[in-house]
Amino acid sequence: MKLHGYGEDRLVAELTRALATDENVRVGIGDDCAAIGSRSAKTWQLLKTDCIVEGVHFQQDTAPEKIGWKAMARAISDIAAMGGLPRYALVTLGAPPETEVARVKAIYAGIRKAARTFDFRVVGGETSRAPGLFLSVTLTGEVDSARCITRSGGRAGDLLFVTGRLGGSIRGRHLAFTPRLAEARWLAGNFRIRAMMDLSDGLGSDLPRLARASGTGYEIFEEKIPRNRGCTMREAIRDGEDYELLFAIAPRDAARLEKSWHKKFPGLALTGIGVLTADRKSKIENRKSHGFDHFA
Amino acid sequence: MKLHGYGEDRLVAELTRALATDENVRVGIGDDCAAIGSRSAKTWQLLKTDCIVEGVHFQQDTAPEKIGWKAMARAISDIAAMGGLPRYALVTLGAPPETEVARVKAIYAGIRKAARTFDFRVVGGETSRAPGLFLSVTLTGEVDSARCITRSGGRAGDLLFVTGRLGGSIRGRHLAFTPRLAEARWLAGNFRIRAMMDLSDGLGSDLPRLARASGTGYEIFEEKIPRNRGCTMREAIRDGEDYELLFAIAPRDAARLEKSWHKKFPGLALTGIGVLTADRKSKIENRKSHGFDHFA
Repeated sequence: MKLHGYGEDRLVAELTRALATDENVRVGIGDDCAAIGSRSAKTWQLLKTDCIVEGVHFQQDTAPEKIGWKAMARAISDIAAMGGLPRYALVTLGAPPETEVARVKAIYAGIRKAARTFDFRVVGGETSRAPGLFLSVTLTGEVDSARCITRSGGRAGDLLFVTGRLGGSIRGRHLAFTPRLAEARWLAGNFRIRAMMDLSDGLGSDLPRLARASGTGYEIFEEKIPRNRGCTMREAIRDGEDYELLFAIAPRDAARLEKSWHKKFPGLALTGIGVLTADRKSKIENRKSHGFDHFA
Repeated sequence: MKLHGYGEDRLVAELTRALATDENVRVGIGDDCAAIGSRSAKTWQLLKTDCIVEGVHFQQDTAPEKIGWKAMARAISDIAAMGGLPRYALVTLGAPPETEVARVKAIYAGIRKAARTFDFRVVGGETSRAPGLFLSVTLTGEVDSARCITRSGGRAGDLLFVTGRLGGSIRGRHLAFTPRLAEARWLAGNFRIRAMMDLSDGLGSDLPRLARASGTGYEIFEEKIPRNRGCTMREAIRDGEDYELLFAIAPRDAARLEKSWHKKFPGLALTGIGVLTADRKSKIENRKSHGFDHFA
């Protein structure tokens, strides 16, 4: 049996099933980040790792600053989705010996730009020869323990919202997107957000994960899904790399949210796209073929 | 200009020169780990990232449990070299889609074995398609701030010791070594170890790094360098992947150290191999051709 066709979610579930945990692991494997801290601590540490690989997440002719930016922005997006702030980063570069030094330097310029923009520090890293170029990054963050938002807190009846518009990221946005850090912090600080995640593999893959983690089903109003210009509904559901926020909020908070959102972030759409349900047999249209599986 | 021939130390120095730091970064880039915490904190957090790549650090026919073990043991060795204990790990796997699921599962068995043996928890990770198999791991640790040992605390006159024997790791030891965590903890707890690091790129590359960080030179008694069976002196100096501890201690502590070491760790050699000097123009014999450069 090969990785191809095995299913990434199944693989991860099997690899991580036997792993031990401890009393300070507040959020473990399966969420956007791990959260570590004592139950009574005011602040928890968030831990996130992510990697991008040439030929998969970027191409040989991708502007190198964008490669560095993307590597960091993806991890920031996950820290944001927990309601946290990024703090310290470690960056590993794997590269063939024939890689141009100038390309590597430009990649690090993109990393430094992300560090300045989102106020975190790169404190370590590693370099290694490798057959293809990749960047593996770890980002720590911190989050007010009372406002740490997981994927698993959603309840039947909660309304589902997404920021921005979905689909078509591959045309360029995936290399230059702005992680929704300010938006997530504002949401976490002002509303009882019950569950949240960032959309990296496509709504069609990610929403079922949020619902599964919350022990609910979901109902989607497909015609409401906010699409990027030129995208079909299918693309909006399955393209992936949107890096928008998907979250669940109690219905009684929704009106206040929509009103204040448009004042606070007038340039960014916020759209109610559905609801979490008690019936767990939901499926997003033609879901099996939707979303991104890394080994498919 | 390509990475090949550019020099790994030079590349890292140039990539990291412009990086910002902050008041909680107690130890930054250039040591075995970063150390984070307030000046007055009793405990600092250690952050380490490392990666191993097929064809470089292991081969396609390497027993997969050993791949997982090695990936973790290398990072543990760096946590140990700071005087710390490992706590939480993040593991990223890059693999071609045609990789056997059984191989990946066996790699994770090796990771779990390391976690049980050295008492840390795997709390997150990432999987991605990649042209060749690699593992990128991050390990956090903690260290008593009063006993955090860097590479930079050595002073002229300090004696240099190494644990174990050097050279020939490529014949198998590099895949199955035991990181010197117990030994490093005992050293940090009972002696004023002025500077310490683990030997990963070979004494010929690593000792000059320790001396440079400490602002000293060094003198080596080459005939004293403890060699593994069948190794030439050249191999002991340049082979790399020894994962033994190299440390500097004040001369007045050395006699007590040697006496109590042999009682505490009777099965493991401890050898005085030289001294840190005020003269910074030292070089280890034929050093230019020694030690491991990842892109050479």
